[in-house]
Amino acid sequence: MSRFFSSRFSELKPYIPGVQPSDPTGFTKLNTNESPFAPSEKALAYAAQNVRPANLYCDTDAKQLCALFAQTVGVEADEVIAGNGSDEILNFAFMAFCGEGCPAVFPDITYGFYPVLASLNGIKQVIIPLEDDLSINVDKYMDVSGTLFIANPNAPTGIALPPSEIEKLAAAKPDSVIVVDEAYVDFGAQSCIPLTKKYSNVLVVQTFSKSRSMAGSRLGFAIGNKELINDLNTIKYSTNPYNVNSYTQALGAGTLLDRDYTEKCCAAIIQNREYTVEGLKKLGFELTDSSANFVFAKHPECGGKELLDKLAERKILVRHFGTARIKDYLRITIGSKDQMDVLLDALAEIITDKA
Amino acid sequence: MSRFFSSRFSELKPYIPGVQPSDPTGFTKLNTNESPFAPSEKALAYAAQNVRPANLYCDTDAKQLCALFAQTVGVEADEVIAGNGSDEILNFAFMAFCGEGCPAVFPDITYGFYPVLASLNGIKQVIIPLEDDLSINVDKYMDVSGTLFIANPNAPTGIALPPSEIEKLAAAKPDSVIVVDEAYVDFGAQSCIPLTKKYSNVLVVQTFSKSRSMAGSRLGFAIGNKELINDLNTIKYSTNPYNVNSYTQALGAGTLLDRDYTEKCCAAIIQNREYTVEGLKKLGFELTDSSANFVFAKHPECGGKELLDKLAERKILVRHFGTARIKDYLRITIGSKDQMDVLLDALAEIITDKA
Repeated sequence: MSRFFSSRFSELKPYIPGVQPSDPTGFTKLNTNESPFAPSEKALAYAAQNVRPANLYCDTDAKQLCALFAQTVGVEADEVIAGNGSDEILNFAFMAFCGEGCPAVFPDITYGFYPVLASLNGIKQVIIPLEDDLSINVDKYMDVSGTLFIANPNAPTGIALPPSEIEKLAAAKPDSVIVVDEAYVDFGAQSCIPLTKKYSNVLVVQTFSKSRSMAGSRLGFAIGNKELINDLNTIKYSTNPYNVNSYTQALGAGTLLDRDYTEKCCAAIIQNREYTVEGLKKLGFELTDSSANFVFAKHPECGGKELLDKLAERKILVRHFGTARIKDYLRITIGSKDQMDVLLDALAEIITDKA
Repeated sequence: MSRFFSSRFSELKPYIPGVQPSDPTGFTKLNTNESPFAPSEKALAYAAQNVRPANLYCDTDAKQLCALFAQTVGVEADEVIAGNGSDEILNFAFMAFCGEGCPAVFPDITYGFYPVLASLNGIKQVIIPLEDDLSINVDKYMDVSGTLFIANPNAPTGIALPPSEIEKLAAAKPDSVIVVDEAYVDFGAQSCIPLTKKYSNVLVVQTFSKSRSMAGSRLGFAIGNKELINDLNTIKYSTNPYNVNSYTQALGAGTLLDRDYTEKCCAAIIQNREYTVEGLKKLGFELTDSSANFVFAKHPECGGKELLDKLAERKILVRHFGTARIKDYLRITIGSKDQMDVLLDALAEIITDKA
């Protein structure tokens, strides 16, 4: 830290993303929940043909992209905003909807970026522990004031709530914004987007990093009633008006125009997840009920850190979190069937060696 | 504004970027200081061949790109950080180096985003008026405490200070960070990057939006001693670790590998600027001495707003600022020679009609 660094950030602990090897060749990369599938040829061709020349600024409003996305998810164009990944959108939401007297409320085990964003923005945090089975009990949020951040499916557990549970919160807490982070919704959970039509306090956040194969392109959205979206735009236009670059706008549009491909990719990942769950259970693993493109698994005889390290020796990357409650678990991204076979074979070897 | 919007932003006035038509075809677009030249074929080919697959996350550190940029500007790789445009980097600098007891100090006439970023971050502003000839007098900053933001060349005047003037500030004010925003440095001014080697309080910010033809790709850098860069990384990793997407990283690298092209583009723009200055003078315009890829001009018989509107009727877009001191001026981007002829012809017509 330099002597010039603002004292208000002296305690800030940055987010630590999963390892991203400079050259991912040779790795079985199952640590950051990327899609194993590249964007479709159609989407890439559309982007190449329609991208605005790089020397001109991008459209600050990403109008065409937002209109297409809005149409896809069944809302109006002024009910969405695009961001440089959903992390940017989440930061805007922390800024816009939390503050003095309005803390950020979220589970103890959830996306690790929430506490960082709260700390960055000087926002108090109210942490609600998950149940013993690692599920979210919405009743525990009923009497807490503040803005709620609910990842659904939750990360890294993968456990999804039905929209009816979120609706209970939205209805009971009309003075609180409920931010539903649906990064993983396309792998078997149900979206809360329809709730944004009925409740002015529900904001849904989605990303193109998982089901839409665009992690490296950085694209996320928020969907909500237009007043909430206006607030996010006020923050965006005061932070970085040209936040989504032209190539990403074009590739995002191309991806939205090829829905069949996205659906096929999601179906394949769900199938690979079921295959992986079965394989892991045979090896003695215990798993949460994941609706995401990852599984969350622990083995009764082998700690999470040990498994992480032994997999890393074999150039298989998975994610492990140090938090006490989940230190026995690994979060394993669902990749291609070949990748999952590499993982399952390696784990079988590690577990056998151990026995 | 929704009833949920944080009260700390209730007075926030977002930045208003120049008009970006959804379809720029048919416009003579001289309003946002873009390069008239697309990235080089070599740079585009390099990007296409070297871009990481979009389904994988980008490199959070943009290591290859930062190493190439550092080499190009003659510093070490840990003395640079890349951002989603230089606006993002400027925001990081406001966050990191201003705060309680450390206001942001900048001229009354300068990049219009500085007051927005100060306001966004709850930072006090100390505004130092430009001299009557619209130049910056560094002596006026000597006794002011806070973090200095000096656009050099300044916008929208285009007037450049020699690095020796910035050095006076750096030497006299060792407890203040001096942020030198060099968005327009490649069109005839001198960079202060060498000062970052000698002074731990100098941070230089550059962009690829102007001289490097990448406005739509969003890429900016800060250059400074590694402690300052570490501080900016702390903010970045707490805000948006994956801030520069993979395609932009690849195109940025390709652009850096084709320096001849950048130099040719800059030389052409400087030549077109001289041509435009001459043409405008013939029409009776008075101009500041611009070292940027724009000119700042006023006509004794025709107000800035009137000229703006009459050019807009002809689908020629230039920029006008409402601020009292400069309301007679237009900021006109230097485009291709053809574009400048369209502009000069239109202005000749407008001025003649007026006479």
